[in-house]
Amino acid sequence: MNTVLAAALAGLGASALAQSSVTLSGTLDVAVRQVRNDTLGSISSQVSGSNSTSKLIVRGQEDLGGGLAAGFYLDGTLLADTGGAGAATPAGQFWDRRSTVGLTHARFGEVRLGRDWVPTHLVWSGFDPFATLGIAGANSFRSFAGSRALGQAFGTLPDAQAANPTLRVSNAAEYFLPANLGGVYGQLIVTAGEGGATAAGFTRGNGFRLGWAGAGFNLAAAQFTTRNSTANRSFKDQVLGASYDFGVVKLSLAQRRWVFGADKTVNTQLGAVIPVGPGVVKLTHVRADQKGVADANDARLFGAGYVYNLSKRSALYGHVARIDNQGGAAFAIAGGPATSGNPTAPNYFGGKASTGLEFGLRHDF
Amino acid sequence: MNTVLAAALAGLGASALAQSSVTLSGTLDVAVRQVRNDTLGSISSQVSGSNSTSKLIVRGQEDLGGGLAAGFYLDGTLLADTGGAGAATPAGQFWDRRSTVGLTHARFGEVRLGRDWVPTHLVWSGFDPFATLGIAGANSFRSFAGSRALGQAFGTLPDAQAANPTLRVSNAAEYFLPANLGGVYGQLIVTAGEGGATAAGFTRGNGFRLGWAGAGFNLAAAQFTTRNSTANRSFKDQVLGASYDFGVVKLSLAQRRWVFGADKTVNTQLGAVIPVGPGVVKLTHVRADQKGVADANDARLFGAGYVYNLSKRSALYGHVARIDNQGGAAFAIAGGPATSGNPTAPNYFGGKASTGLEFGLRHDF
Amino acid sequence: MNTVLAAALAGLGASALAQSSVTLSGTLDVAVRQVRNDTLGSISSQVSGSNSTSKLIVRGQEDLGGGLAAGFYLDGTLLADTGGAGAATPAGQFWDRRSTVGLTHARFGEVRLGRDWVPTHLVWSGFDPFATLGIAGANSFRSFAGSRALGQAFGTLPDAQAANPTLRVSNAAEYFLPANLGGVYGQLIVTAGEGGATAAGFTRGNGFRLGWAGAGFNLAAAQFTTRNSTANRSFKDQVLGASYDFGVVKLSLAQRRWVFGADKTVNTQLGAVIPVGPGVVKLTHVRADQKGVADANDARLFGAGYVYNLSKRSALYGHVARIDNQGGAAFAIAGGPATSGNPTAPNYFGGKASTGLEFGLRHDF
Repeated sequence: MNTVLAAALAGLGASALAQSSVTLSGTLDVAVRQVRNDTLGSISSQVSGSNSTSKLIVRGQEDLGGGLAAGFYLDGTLLADTGGAGAATPAGQFWDRRSTVGLTHARFGEVRLGRDWVPTHLVWSGFDPFATLGIAGANSFRSFAGSRALGQAFGTLPDAQAANPTLRVSNAAEYFLPANLGGVYGQLIVTAGEGGATAAGFTRGNGFRLGWAGAGFNLAAAQFTTRNSTANRSFKDQVLGASYDFGVVKLSLAQRRWVFGADKTVNTQLGAVIPVGPGVVKLTHVRADQKGVADANDARLFGAGYVYNLSKRSALYGHVARIDNQGGAAFAIAGGPATSGNPTAPNYFGGKASTGLEFGLRHDF
Repeated sequence: MNTVLAAALAGLGASALAQSSVTLSGTLDVAVRQVRNDTLGSISSQVSGSNSTSKLIVRGQEDLGGGLAAGFYLDGTLLADTGGAGAATPAGQFWDRRSTVGLTHARFGEVRLGRDWVPTHLVWSGFDPFATLGIAGANSFRSFAGSRALGQAFGTLPDAQAANPTLRVSNAAEYFLPANLGGVYGQLIVTAGEGGATAAGFTRGNGFRLGWAGAGFNLAAAQFTTRNSTANRSFKDQVLGASYDFGVVKLSLAQRRWVFGADKTVNTQLGAVIPVGPGVVKLTHVRADQKGVADANDARLFGAGYVYNLSKRSALYGHVARIDNQGGAAFAIAGGPATSGNPTAPNYFGGKASTGLEFGLRHDF
Repeated sequence: MNTVLAAALAGLGASALAQSSVTLSGTLDVAVRQVRNDTLGSISSQVSGSNSTSKLIVRGQEDLGGGLAAGFYLDGTLLADTGGAGAATPAGQFWDRRSTVGLTHARFGEVRLGRDWVPTHLVWSGFDPFATLGIAGANSFRSFAGSRALGQAFGTLPDAQAANPTLRVSNAAEYFLPANLGGVYGQLIVTAGEGGATAAGFTRGNGFRLGWAGAGFNLAAAQFTTRNSTANRSFKDQVLGASYDFGVVKLSLAQRRWVFGADKTVNTQLGAVIPVGPGVVKLTHVRADQKGVADANDARLFGAGYVYNLSKRSALYGHVARIDNQGGAAFAIAGGPATSGNPTAPNYFGGKASTGLEFGLRHDF
């Protein structure tokens, strides 16, 4: 409903619009998926958010005059296939995607407080044709078990609560550059550890994002450094991305590095988006280069998809993807039979291949 | 608020209306209830949803042209007496009633994906004057402990997550017949088991609903067959219903059969709705015939109520109900002192009677 | 969005407005806080709701004619710093602040059912310049461990679920006096214990609130008596409050007494609100007098703050506060290093001082 309440307000005159606007919007995106994990067999399932995360958003802004505005943003994940809402852990984190209040000045930029995406995710997902979602998304190598660096840095916590989050983070204070800087955009972020235990998900971190978009180009870099309060070791999350829109195809290249002590995982992605008919063809190749204990445990993801736009707000889509593991790497596409990175487990998946396909319907409201 | 945003949009002209509409609506329904369980005493409580389930709904539709529309529907239970929202288990299932996205074509019908009611519940509740709600609702014999067939089929899981759900189900793909088929309505449904464990609530199932409404009649049948993935035994849920509106009274007769191996429970309901003054008198009689290990463990429910409509959206109501158990059947109206189906327990309730009354206020928004 | 939908409706004419109105509104309030607990050190954190509780509200009213109206109110806490919503315990209590449905008559008052604030909290927070929120709020002495009376009465349950709640209560039936009684306002409340166990948070209680506001004065009294169903002992919660607005300053004096058997805690508060520039200076002094096992275990809170209004809906604010403990009293401002009331614990805090400051941004929508 991006436009509904705003439109209603427009009908009431500009003065009403200046006073306030609240928008209730979101996305429902459900797909049917099949994943085959080599000899372990295949599983069919229904999943949520393969083209765009299913979500509910309440947001608004108040014009305070003199170029200043106050605004808020609440954004929570919907598990459209099961009716779930918010983070699985912790229970009650309904607005797990974003929960912020801020002041924006047209010339001086924005100060924002609350829970938000980490800047590295914004860059990484921004250069991925699949926005890190679905079977072909570039987050397939963010698995805890499969990655040396992440396995140690995250421990057993889900990412949303991990001491070293790579997706979103709570207790953040942020500054964003204003618009109209000739295409330059960027932000600074610090997060409070609150003296809390790692196991409870407290994160002390800081980072930045800086980019430039213009003349068909988009270039960006970001870093987010967090400190695991138990081990007191820093975890570095770094991203570089570049894209150019040739018109017939938009090519993107991005690299994300996770460094935790002697362990390092480098994900490199090459993507293409090609307008075809009333939609786009999307292609991706991601390579995970894991360094540390076992250098040969690398993996590759190939993905392709077509998004058929029924309108600006609704689309049908289909994706195919394949992960090839090298050495003891044991990554798999989500939704398949259970796999293990433990060589003695019956469902050991080291060096095997995972393939998947999915078809879905996305509707923005 | 069924009409609010739609009305606001209407004021903006038909073109805006064609673009989008989102509705925030729901119900708050709270009642005071007293239940006496024979010699075990009585308890007074406050309950939610005895006339209409307390709920919050966000839904919308987008006209795609050519008779095609995309739409979504989010519907979650409210526990209005305590401020709770969504399913008790699992935590976080906020939109536990319905969470779907779909495409509807005026001539070809609707395809819908997500969480929805099982077709058998739609028929069973549709022919119950009390819509299966409150002390006189026809779901009193859906208790796990009291029913042979359900006790085994459901295990210890709440219905919402049970392997063999009789109310709602996740991961469903559905097809609905279009309107304007001369009163014929119907649907097909398949649900994905996702290779999951029964204990986690994964359900592999399929079913249908078919009905005809016209000339004062309403006739419907439905089936939903699920497969408990642990025992790999199928659980059959079947419903037949018929009603005729004589004007001075609308009579309904419905039967629901649950079959699980050698166990079978057959619930038969006779209902009447009589317009009286600014409201309706409702009468119900439900008989549970349990076959299997102990054929004599049957039970009966008698219920009566009056709904006084303050407006189309608001009503006061009062219900009385009584359950009579035969043999070892140990059903009781919800909200009374704890009962047990175990003959050696101090609160053994086999063959005893449970009586209740409740008065409430319902408000739709 | 207090005014948005109402305004939209106004544009549709009075008849539409009379039919229905639903409002989606709320608050996001985030602050950065630092708390020092004597020799235990200090912690910096981000917190939610120090000026006004972060919350989401859905409410509406239907005019039924003849002076009668039906209405509902859903109000749930937001943890804006982390994206959380609702009560931490129990999970799923999304609308933990208020969840009610009611009938209001212009001449006869209102009947309301559901979850609501206890009347004593309404008076106590109403006379506190800080509305019991943030580091200087008058609820710092509501800690379970630090207070004899509350420590026993509440047990280990969070207040929202405690058998003897002093904030909000479920399963309530309330009557409110109508407006236009010459400044007199008041209510009666009874809550159902539902035969439940104390440990599950069931509360049998009753109480009242009575006040008068006029000619610059506001005077109020309230009581809420609950019965811990395990120990079957009554817990009395009593409040008296008075304020006078001199124009240049509004002074308030209030006293809250908690009595549980031989234990008694008396909190006395003196507050001042002084308009200064585009905002107000707020001052508070609260003294906790604990009687029972150890009479000398008293404590004092001094607090000061300035709220700078950016608009009616948005504000910047800063607070400072200090708690001084006497004897074995071990109260501390929330958000600092962990403290203990146990003399043998390494972080024993008896008789020590806790100091804090916080700066935040509040936005109502």
